[in-house]
Amino acid sequence: MGNRHDAGRSIRSPRGVELNCRSWLTEAPYRMIQNNLDIEVAEHPEDLVVYGGIGRAARDWESFDRILATLRELGDDETLLVQSGKPVGVFPTHPDAPRVLIANSNLVPHWATWEHFDELDAKGLMMFGQMTAGSWIYIGSQGIVQGTYETFVAAARTHFQGDPFGRWILTAGLGGMGGAQPLAATMAGFSLLAIECDPSRIELRIQTGYLEQRALSLDEAMELLDHAKQTGRPTSIGLLGNAAEVLEEMVRRDLVPDLVTDQTSAHDPLRGYLPVGYHLDEWRNPTDPVRLVGDAKQSMARHVRAMLAMVDRGAIAFDYGNNIRQGAFEAGVERAFEIPGFVPAYIRPLFCRGYGPFRWVALSGDPEDIYATDAKVKELVDDDPHLHHWLDMARERIKFQGLPARICWLGLRDRARVGRAFNAMVAGGELRAPVVIGRDHLDTGSVASPHRETESMLDGSDAVSDWPLLNAMLNVASGATWVSLHHGGGVGMGYSQHAGQVIVCDGSEAADRRLARVLYNDPGTGVMRHADAGYPQAIDEARAQGLKLPSVPI
Amino acid sequence: MGNRHDAGRSIRSPRGVELNCRSWLTEAPYRMIQNNLDIEVAEHPEDLVVYGGIGRAARDWESFDRILATLRELGDDETLLVQSGKPVGVFPTHPDAPRVLIANSNLVPHWATWEHFDELDAKGLMMFGQMTAGSWIYIGSQGIVQGTYETFVAAARTHFQGDPFGRWILTAGLGGMGGAQPLAATMAGFSLLAIECDPSRIELRIQTGYLEQRALSLDEAMELLDHAKQTGRPTSIGLLGNAAEVLEEMVRRDLVPDLVTDQTSAHDPLRGYLPVGYHLDEWRNPTDPVRLVGDAKQSMARHVRAMLAMVDRGAIAFDYGNNIRQGAFEAGVERAFEIPGFVPAYIRPLFCRGYGPFRWVALSGDPEDIYATDAKVKELVDDDPHLHHWLDMARERIKFQGLPARICWLGLRDRARVGRAFNAMVAGGELRAPVVIGRDHLDTGSVASPHRETESMLDGSDAVSDWPLLNAMLNVASGATWVSLHHGGGVGMGYSQHAGQVIVCDGSEAADRRLARVLYNDPGTGVMRHADAGYPQAIDEARAQGLKLPSVPI
Ligand SMILES: NC(=O)c1ccc[n+]([C@@H]2O[C@H](COP(=O)([O-])OP(=O)(O)OC[C@H]3O[C@@H](n4cnc5c(N)ncnc54)[C@H](O)[C@@H]3O)[C@@H](O)[C@H]2O)c1
Ligand SMILES: NC(=O)c1ccc[n+]([C@@H]2O[C@H](COP(=O)([O-])OP(=O)(O)OC[C@H]3O[C@@H](n4cnc5c(N)ncnc54)[C@H](O)[C@@H]3O)[C@@H](O)[C@H]2O)c1
Repeated sequence: MGNRHDAGRSIRSPRGVELNCRSWLTEAPYRMIQNNLDIEVAEHPEDLVVYGGIGRAARDWESFDRILATLRELGDDETLLVQSGKPVGVFPTHPDAPRVLIANSNLVPHWATWEHFDELDAKGLMMFGQMTAGSWIYIGSQGIVQGTYETFVAAARTHFQGDPFGRWILTAGLGGMGGAQPLAATMAGFSLLAIECDPSRIELRIQTGYLEQRALSLDEAMELLDHAKQTGRPTSIGLLGNAAEVLEEMVRRDLVPDLVTDQTSAHDPLRGYLPVGYHLDEWRNPTDPVRLVGDAKQSMARHVRAMLAMVDRGAIAFDYGNNIRQGAFEAGVERAFEIPGFVPAYIRPLFCRGYGPFRWVALSGDPEDIYATDAKVKELVDDDPHLHHWLDMARERIKFQGLPARICWLGLRDRARVGRAFNAMVAGGELRAPVVIGRDHLDTGSVASPHRETESMLDGSDAVSDWPLLNAMLNVASGATWVSLHHGGGVGMGYSQHAGQVIVCDGSEAADRRLARVLYNDPGTGVMRHADAGYPQAIDEARAQGLKLPSVPI
Repeated sequence: MGNRHDAGRSIRSPRGVELNCRSWLTEAPYRMIQNNLDIEVAEHPEDLVVYGGIGRAARDWESFDRILATLRELGDDETLLVQSGKPVGVFPTHPDAPRVLIANSNLVPHWATWEHFDELDAKGLMMFGQMTAGSWIYIGSQGIVQGTYETFVAAARTHFQGDPFGRWILTAGLGGMGGAQPLAATMAGFSLLAIECDPSRIELRIQTGYLEQRALSLDEAMELLDHAKQTGRPTSIGLLGNAAEVLEEMVRRDLVPDLVTDQTSAHDPLRGYLPVGYHLDEWRNPTDPVRLVGDAKQSMARHVRAMLAMVDRGAIAFDYGNNIRQGAFEAGVERAFEIPGFVPAYIRPLFCRGYGPFRWVALSGDPEDIYATDAKVKELVDDDPHLHHWLDMARERIKFQGLPARICWLGLRDRARVGRAFNAMVAGGELRAPVVIGRDHLDTGSVASPHRETESMLDGSDAVSDWPLLNAMLNVASGATWVSLHHGGGVGMGYSQHAGQVIVCDGSEAADRRLARVLYNDPGTGVMRHADAGYPQAIDEARAQGLKLPSVPI
């Protein structure tokens, strides 16, 4: 297989208004794949790894170079096909069709396991795309801060009458996504203790201002939490250790948090969860991968048992979408699924109204372009103080990584309005260069993932993946600039199928028409899917937004 | 769930030039879904079952009616979404986008089993789409005659120096697909004995002229085969019985065919394979479905063991894509996969050059439209005597079922030429009404099915399903009129993912542009996929047809 490691590479997206490709429709993916591997953005750019364990932007460096070369030449009536991070074909299409179509990590179900994936991956035939890694719309930790913030706020609303005062969250993992937890928690008014086994991760989060302080022992951590409670100023604390061991120790000492969750990469038992008793080096270069997987699941079992013990003593636990319940369950923890997923617990009501992680990136590289769009969103969505609060805090506390970007959760009612307004700003010269609008695959209509986004659906349709496939095809038909279909993101091989879309605002009228379609249809499929499952909020929203749903009595 | 059985329904597609919908782009799917359920076409139209066990055209009668009602109103800038046979949404798109997008039977891999499917199906949340049933381009037994004929001819070429004289084929199953075997065999110059457990199926095949005679006993069947051998005139014989038992009896009596294969619906152990000892009624209304599945697999094991015994005595066996090897393997037949699949054995060289089951249907209902297109194909593809022979025999020996239709295998080099010529014939008034061009999901670029179409790929990429997903998305981007993504067709739940496309020739210039793209891109993805796997014929063909493959050195 091709070369996957190149320590000599240092990727940074071009900035400014000069084109390297033939139009902004191709310049946009050209910049975004490079931005995904920016040293400020990616977890291991030298290995093409963006985030989430081994989520890559391209299969190997040869593929990366060929993708860039192909995009430089691609016409606005052509479409590039990317198969698990490798550019495999260029076909004649038309201007309203996507410029890039991507399928990453998809396996016929009977073979959809990590074992078979790893075999194919080792042969150079596949790549793990995670969600936004292989679909070129990862924007660093900010992406998840908003989702995590929404979740913590919703949890406070659900369990503590909206008042997190003096309360604290226990979690583990300060990786690409998990690193957002401390900042999101303090923004939401909670203190937070995060257990992390890799000291460099704690370091990085402190450097970027996401994590406030490091504790050298559990005792010190508890003192700092106590102090925060007394002063009424929430804080975030990183503690080096193995989560399974630290949580067991906490249970022994009867230390019970208000909320407990986890964001280790437990979805990938081979690479994502350090088993008790392993050194970091031993873990990353395993001599016996099969044993490692078994040991990781055993440790997950200890970890989840400790979480359940905390629940029995009054803590509220939720699974934060890393599938740790499944690993623990396989290792014998029958009660694992008593811990609810965060989506049914907190996020689904938002999905019913087409809310999801709307995000955009300034291709100019100029932070002012983001500040101008921030202001535009506040102007257009003037009835949502929660959104305004988020945008203010984001501007103040979140450092841009790579190209300046912003995320905020918008619903079906607002996405197209906002997107078209951005396009008008490009047309009117209010922005220095075009912006792209995309989203996570974790969104209202784009994913089937029975242990996460579609857990416990009202009608039992958790595992039906017709929906994300329709979402992807409709995004292609509507004229998104690139569209992706992935398997296994977030929760690991076999457990999810999901779609992504990114669309360019280049200021043209054609883009305006495409934005009107894509940014209505894309969240529209989410409201449709939830209305079909029988959620009354979704049926109401479909009615309010004029969706045509032939089989739902409206 | 909705009503699935309605004995009072008798569906027949409208004929002629009068529109029931707003344009031919919507009239075409409107006619084709109805044609799929024409009493001449479908196996159990009253249950919405088209072929292949429980392959349906719509989820229930309410969904069927709503699909028709929606198509009648659908605009040429709108797209209807169909989720497992139910119309779920209508979204604004544009004229070059598909009018219908379909996703049938797709399940997140970990849940992609018959058990979970059946649960969802019983709740009214799903439907089995097979391949062309749920994607509205089944054309009756003719569809498979050509494929079966190609396969038998290729087998004669491979094993008998192209001369089947005096040789005979043993098979089982005379259902929707399997019923084509006797006709294809005699066309190819073989005699054939088919074991079938349902007398009505034998009857139907004799009525339609696909099967020549029925034997009342194995002895009589062997006499008839002997007679055919002596007279030099191949014949086809149906014998009532359970294949597992009859084959065992043949082994006991040392009766060895030249070729042995099977087309029972073994891919669906609950409904597709009669276990030894069951009456038909007992089988179709099982009191203990779990036991039935176990018994079916046990009988498959006996069936496959008998096939292997015949191989040991000199017969040549191949699996005809119904996954019987898997059922037998699960019931303990370790040697099951010694029987090769028909694709690597005979079809892959065709796939490498983009050949596959190109088919078209005259929406006028007028057979003359098909005869005129037959002549056009012979005129355009004037260097292929094999193709001319097929078209002559098809015209002579195949009765149309439902709307007149034709199938012939065409390659990447010819599909777009032929499609555009048909469109010109519509424009020039040489045909009474538009035609649709479609294909089976079993095609060069549209399927991942490790026990059938992608068995034993050169590079080991059998289970990689990025390819059919890219095929579907590219067909959407290119402007096919409807595009479908299915799971489990042919080989059953968990074992395949595949895509379909159908495109209308309405005589317009827009259709000409779309045909040029779709009928080049669609088979082009097949040549691409095989070139990527390293097949030299595919790399040669890519070069000859001007495909742009960034990662294949051309
Ligand atoms: N909830 C969501 O919205 C959401 C979104 C995306 C991803 N996720 C999931 O969250 C998980 C984390 O994602 P990520 O991108 O941060 O992954 P990552 O691999 O970048 O980080 C995981 C971190 O956990 C640490 N870790 C592993 N085992 C440990 C142990 N036993 N004790 C302590 N620390 C340990 C690792 O050192 C690493 O820093 C993934 O499973 C991902 O799929 C959730
Ligand atoms: N090779 C190909 O190109 C190809 C294409 C499509 C489908 N198939 C596969 O071929 C199989 C047959 O398809 P079909 O549409 O004809 O299915 P079908 O269900 O219409 O017909 C199956 C027939 O087998 C008979 N049968 C079942 N068990 C039997 C037994 N034990 N002994 C004798 N007869 C028995 C049934 O009575 C029925 O008539 C399916 O598995 C299908 O997926 C193959």
